[in-house]
Amino acid sequence: MLDANKTIQLSHGGGGKEMDQLIKSLFFKAFDNPILRAEEDAAKLQLSGPVAFTTDSFTVSPLFFAGGNIGKLAIAGTVNDLAMMGAQPEYLSCSFIIEEGFSIAELKIIVESMAEELQQSGARIVCGDTKVVPRGCADGLFINTTGIGRIIMPNISTQNLSTDDVIIVSRDIGRHGAAILMAREGLELESDLTSDCASLWPMVEQLIAANIPIHAMRDATRGGLAAVLNEWAKASNVGINLIEKAIPIADEVKGLCELFGFEAHDLANEGTFVIALPREAADGAVEILQRYGHCEKACIIGNVVETHLGKVVLTTPWGSHRYLDLPQGELLPRIC
Amino acid sequence: MLDANKTIQLSHGGGGKEMDQLIKSLFFKAFDNPILRAEEDAAKLQLSGPVAFTTDSFTVSPLFFAGGNIGKLAIAGTVNDLAMMGAQPEYLSCSFIIEEGFSIAELKIIVESMAEELQQSGARIVCGDTKVVPRGCADGLFINTTGIGRIIMPNISTQNLSTDDVIIVSRDIGRHGAAILMAREGLELESDLTSDCASLWPMVEQLIAANIPIHAMRDATRGGLAAVLNEWAKASNVGINLIEKAIPIADEVKGLCELFGFEAHDLANEGTFVIALPREAADGAVEILQRYGHCEKACIIGNVVETHLGKVVLTTPWGSHRYLDLPQGELLPRIC
Repeated sequence: MLDANKTIQLSHGGGGKEMDQLIKSLFFKAFDNPILRAEEDAAKLQLSGPVAFTTDSFTVSPLFFAGGNIGKLAIAGTVNDLAMMGAQPEYLSCSFIIEEGFSIAELKIIVESMAEELQQSGARIVCGDTKVVPRGCADGLFINTTGIGRIIMPNISTQNLSTDDVIIVSRDIGRHGAAILMAREGLELESDLTSDCASLWPMVEQLIAANIPIHAMRDATRGGLAAVLNEWAKASNVGINLIEKAIPIADEVKGLCELFGFEAHDLANEGTFVIALPREAADGAVEILQRYGHCEKACIIGNVVETHLGKVVLTTPWGSHRYLDLPQGELLPRIC
Repeated sequence: MLDANKTIQLSHGGGGKEMDQLIKSLFFKAFDNPILRAEEDAAKLQLSGPVAFTTDSFTVSPLFFAGGNIGKLAIAGTVNDLAMMGAQPEYLSCSFIIEEGFSIAELKIIVESMAEELQQSGARIVCGDTKVVPRGCADGLFINTTGIGRIIMPNISTQNLSTDDVIIVSRDIGRHGAAILMAREGLELESDLTSDCASLWPMVEQLIAANIPIHAMRDATRGGLAAVLNEWAKASNVGINLIEKAIPIADEVKGLCELFGFEAHDLANEGTFVIALPREAADGAVEILQRYGHCEKACIIGNVVETHLGKVVLTTPWGSHRYLDLPQGELLPRIC
């Protein structure tokens, strides 16, 4: 048995008995499925048709934050990259780089979070890898997840926005960036703010099932809402108008932004997505999203226009207009 | 342009302009292909039939060694995991975790090695991820590669060994472990020894094309020849006899083993594989392997028997017998 009071040793990555024990009594137990259990050099999968394939390494600091940890994030992040392509997340690989001396109890919590988050989408971890590096050679734990999903809605693209599309956001923005900031600054006790970290496939699946004609869809991760909309405006060569007061932002996020001089639309999200779609389909999409507790604030925040091509323009609560630019420099390193 | 005299900054992982420049002027340039260039959240692939899926994170230290570097290793390692399943390596993801301050010139050499090694198998990198962590939070560079390959020969398995199979090794053993040891001990100048690091798909493809009836096939990485054969003996519940003097070992590897008290069959390889197959097909397989320069020492080293089930027995040059056990403990951390 793996002793939760102990720490990870170099031998846990050595390919011998200790590594076998770590893999079988922790990883296999949490992620159990027949493909993983076959223990071959590679997992054997049956696939057909178009699939999406995506990879992400997670280096978030700190490893635990309000609303999640690196494990939940590593599953949700890769599941979301697939979901945003209109693909059902099916198979994930998972690779750990662990620093010698890392707490086995903490690793267990992280791995169990991963298993729990997998249940949100039904995706399975089918192959993995474990490396242990000496003390000081990594910062606790890094996780890579790489995912394969079956593409169900093939025509979603950053280049598909057209005039008269409206822009929907699935919930209030900026929570993940704010939660990480709070964890780093040791402000945990002063706020109820949690990260939005979540798997988006359940909502996307319902949108697809309802035949919502999605033109573009993207989770607003690094660079936040501002980065996604600027990318879309450029890629589709359209203008985007946003109504500032329509954008949902939690009071806690607003407070932190004022304190640190950030803008909520620049902050990272890990379970918040943006959709561009024809106006006539917008109410149906909002209604579907609002069925989910964390998406109850889903709403229309703007629309696509034929002017100021490639640019995003914000209408302020005072009726004035300003460009919403790409975030500059490095706001918060290691948010994912 | 990316200045090769400079170093990686946190902003190179920040999702903004600097990251875009790093990705476009280095990664996209080296790995260029239409799927990668689409720049979506996930790559779109057309797959059908059974595929193999495998992941590996590479943390080798030092990053450069005689005969290769972490980049070449990251491609060959994942390509080989696919090849050993009888699968043609097709699509790879690639994720970098880079320590702030890492030399851009060195990163360029590593990335170019990756591109060069991809040409050995025809596999393509179709998606990627870049994270930069602050100084001291990683040891230079870690690379994850995850691969998808089309399974061409489906029945290769560790459980398929049968009595009267013979065991073939593709070349002399222990080179990678010895090369890493040498690099760590600063013995570079005293020897011509190089790692065996190489993509094995070209040889496997020829074996499959010649209808060689392979029962089991595995590259002898961590744990070396001893680990592979012990795993096979257990998984297939057979005995394996090895003729010690038949096992090819370079003089430089023998010398290092004597100096450090290692056994060559415990040392890691990164471009050496073992095959179990019916005796009547063995000469044909050896002949195919020997066409490749680095496999000119391919030969039969033993056979499968009905006695000492689950064990590997070595016949020494003096005619005595001993068990070849699994390597104990951690011989050499971070060899891959």
